[in-house]
Amino acid sequence: MTEVVAKKEGLEQQIAELRTQIESLSRAGAESKISMIVFSGDLDKVLAAFIIASGAVAMGLDVVMFFTFWGTAILRDKEKKVGGKDFMGKMFGTMLPKGTGDVKLSKMNMGGMGTAMMKSLMKKKNVASLEQMLELAAELGVRIFICEMSMDLMGFKREEMIGYPNLTYCGVAKFLEEAQNSKIQLFI
Amino acid sequence: MTEVVAKKEGLEQQIAELRTQIESLSRAGAESKISMIVFSGDLDKVLAAFIIASGAVAMGLDVVMFFTFWGTAILRDKEKKVGGKDFMGKMFGTMLPKGTGDVKLSKMNMGGMGTAMMKSLMKKKNVASLEQMLELAAELGVRIFICEMSMDLMGFKREEMIGYPNLTYCGVAKFLEEAQNSKIQLFI
Amino acid sequence: MTEVVAKKEGLEQQIAELRTQIESLSRAGAESKISMIVFSGDLDKVLAAFIIASGAVAMGLDVVMFFTFWGTAILRDKEKKVGGKDFMGKMFGTMLPKGTGDVKLSKMNMGGMGTAMMKSLMKKKNVASLEQMLELAAELGVRIFICEMSMDLMGFKREEMIGYPNLTYCGVAKFLEEAQNSKIQLFI
Repeated sequence: MTEVVAKKEGLEQQIAELRTQIESLSRAGAESKISMIVFSGDLDKVLAAFIIASGAVAMGLDVVMFFTFWGTAILRDKEKKVGGKDFMGKMFGTMLPKGTGDVKLSKMNMGGMGTAMMKSLMKKKNVASLEQMLELAAELGVRIFICEMSMDLMGFKREEMIGYPNLTYCGVAKFLEEAQNSKIQLFI
Repeated sequence: MTEVVAKKEGLEQQIAELRTQIESLSRAGAESKISMIVFSGDLDKVLAAFIIASGAVAMGLDVVMFFTFWGTAILRDKEKKVGGKDFMGKMFGTMLPKGTGDVKLSKMNMGGMGTAMMKSLMKKKNVASLEQMLELAAELGVRIFICEMSMDLMGFKREEMIGYPNLTYCGVAKFLEEAQNSKIQLFI
Repeated sequence: MTEVVAKKEGLEQQIAELRTQIESLSRAGAESKISMIVFSGDLDKVLAAFIIASGAVAMGLDVVMFFTFWGTAILRDKEKKVGGKDFMGKMFGTMLPKGTGDVKLSKMNMGGMGTAMMKSLMKKKNVASLEQMLELAAELGVRIFICEMSMDLMGFKREEMIGYPNLTYCGVAKFLEEAQNSKIQLFI
């Protein structure tokens, strides 16, 4: 009888081990999350990013958007002005689009005519504007990260960025942390 | 003896539970599939997408390509004409490339000369043309989705799109469904 | 008693089966790896790719970069000269940037002024230059693949490429093999 009990305890231990392994496999698996790097500052690409974001939320996915390089410019608030910039900062500040209303198509911009056409088409076809997409994203709980290095390069200051719930200023490492546990990652 | 049997039944139940957990982990894992968003309508990028697609099929991966924005234009059939377009639809219809034969390089197009050079080079080096790539994709069972919202924006109609086996008109949600179970996702 | 032993053996077999399933699940899971396709030859995008690469290594991820199309041009060594090129090869050779020092911004290049500004800004803000990034990547063990088909198209020869540890010349299949077992894949 003692032998039977001993063997049974061995089995119980093996089962406990299997349970631990399964739990660690579950944790290792990707979460229901999509992570996007928004590198581009073009109207069409940023629009695509936000359409993917809201579609993903509708499917129950967590969404993280990491704005870097040209993408950071569209998160500036056109109403906010900051001083104390150096020459380069002023130049970039003037030349890059200031906020969602100021971005252009990557193709067929045609001195702004193509962009204006696209915007009027979007209105007509009931496609939300970039401004509305950003508002929607905030409501849906889309998390927005801004690349600090890019802001530093372009001379952007935190005080001139839009108000957005839990806007996170961070580096690429913070983004990669999210990305590696996501089911989908895109570079846009 | 009864005690022994009871304990054994407990073990059997634990094993059954572990089995269920493992099955759900297997299902949760990504399928052998690659999902690509073809946003660009440039010759070089679309070519890259199709080269990846056929390479992936050769490796036993399922392939889904979701054509959106500028990418939709290359799926138009240059032989098909449709009427009843409004002013904007006509403009986009004329200005955007009509089908695979009409697309240009993203760089060094040089008024068409760079694109012509690249095409002649591709022929010389035995790289399949975009037309041939599309045919091959159909033979290989690559699934092509077209973004309905983009078609609506550009004023494209279903009647002017190419004949392709099981062409699917859909929204971003349908694509994300495929993408989240894919091993690889790319935004091109 | 024999019955008890028989049942226990059944349990042991079931546990062994579960163990095998768990092991195969572990193997099927993505490795701690990031795979990037560097399609672009623009300063800003290639820089982003290298920043992601070094960030990923710092987090313990393996990094594979597959340079294709315009991306291959930046891996040329400006000091190396090769002969025996045909007319097309000579043209592409002259027109495409030769190495990391020669690449331009995708936006706001403004005849080179924007690119020069960005480079001077990077220096001022202590952001590593592309040359330094490449050196760092080699030190960090980032693996670089070059697309053979692209090199053939552009007329580049192996003898004119940079010295880099274990540079691999390969096709898309080799890259997809790495990509499908990676946690993160990006098309840049």
